Amino acid sequence: MQTINLAEKFKLVTALWSPKIIAELNDSYVKLARLKGEFIWHKHDQEDELFMVIKGSLTIRLRDGDLLLKEGELAVIPRGVEHCPQAAGEVQVLLLEPRTTVNTGDQPGERTVAADWI
Amino acid sequence: MQTINLAEKFKLVTALWSPKIIAELNDSYVKLARLKGEFIWHKHDQEDELFMVIKGSLTIRLRDGDLLLKEGELAVIPRGVEHCPQAAGEVQVLLLEPRTTVNTGDQPGERTVAADWI
Repeated sequence: MQTINLAEKFKLVTALWSPKIIAELNDSYVKLARLKGEFIWHKHDQEDELFMVIKGSLTIRLRDGDLLLKEGELAVIPRGVEHCPQAAGEVQVLLLEPRTTVNTGDQPGERTVAADWI
Repeated sequence: MQTINLAEKFKLVTALWSPKIIAELNDSYVKLARLKGEFIWHKHDQEDELFMVIKGSLTIRLRDGDLLLKEGELAVIPRGVEHCPQAAGEVQVLLLEPRTTVNTGDQPGERTVAADWI
C-alpha cells in the first residue's frame, strides 16, 4: 500500500496515446495518459470508461455532439457508445476502466497498445 | 452523458463525512466527500476503495503505519484492510468504490450514512 503522486507518475508517461497503469482496484485499472491530436473512433462493448482531466483540456467527440472536459472535470463514456478523444494541445488524463479494456476498443490496429505499469 | 465539474459538485457537499455520488461506471460509484477530524476504524470485506485528495491533505491510519495523501495524490485501500481516515484541516476527497460499499464498512452505527446523488 502506497501513496501515488499523479505529477510524479506523469513524468513516467513519455509517449502520447499510450495509457499506463498506476493502480488497480476491484476489477479495474487506474491509468494515466498524455493525449494530443486526434485518436480513432471506437467503442468498448463491455466496459464503461471514465476520463478525468488533470491538466489541459480534452474534447471527446460523440456521434451526437462533443463533450469538452477542462481541468478538474470528468465524464463517463458508457459501454457501446462510440467516441473519439481529441486534444488541440497536450492534455494529461486519468482513466478508470475495467482491466479488460483495450485502448482502441472494437477497432484494433496500429493505434492499439498494451498498458504497462509505471 | 455530461461533463462533471468537481469544484461545482463540491459546492453541493455540505456535510462532513457524508460522501455523495457524482458518477457511476461498471459496478462502481465515484463519490465526493469533505472530511475533517477523525472517522472510525473499519474495513470493507469485499471492496477495494480508492481515495484521491482534490484539496487539502488526508491521513489514512493503518494498523501498521499511516498513509499521508496530499493534493494530487491517491491510494487504494484493499478489501479487508482496517483503516481510519483522519484530517487535521478540511479535505476534499474523491472516492471510487463498488456500489455496495457502505461508508463505515463492517462497523455500522451512528457514523453510517447512505450516499445520495448530487
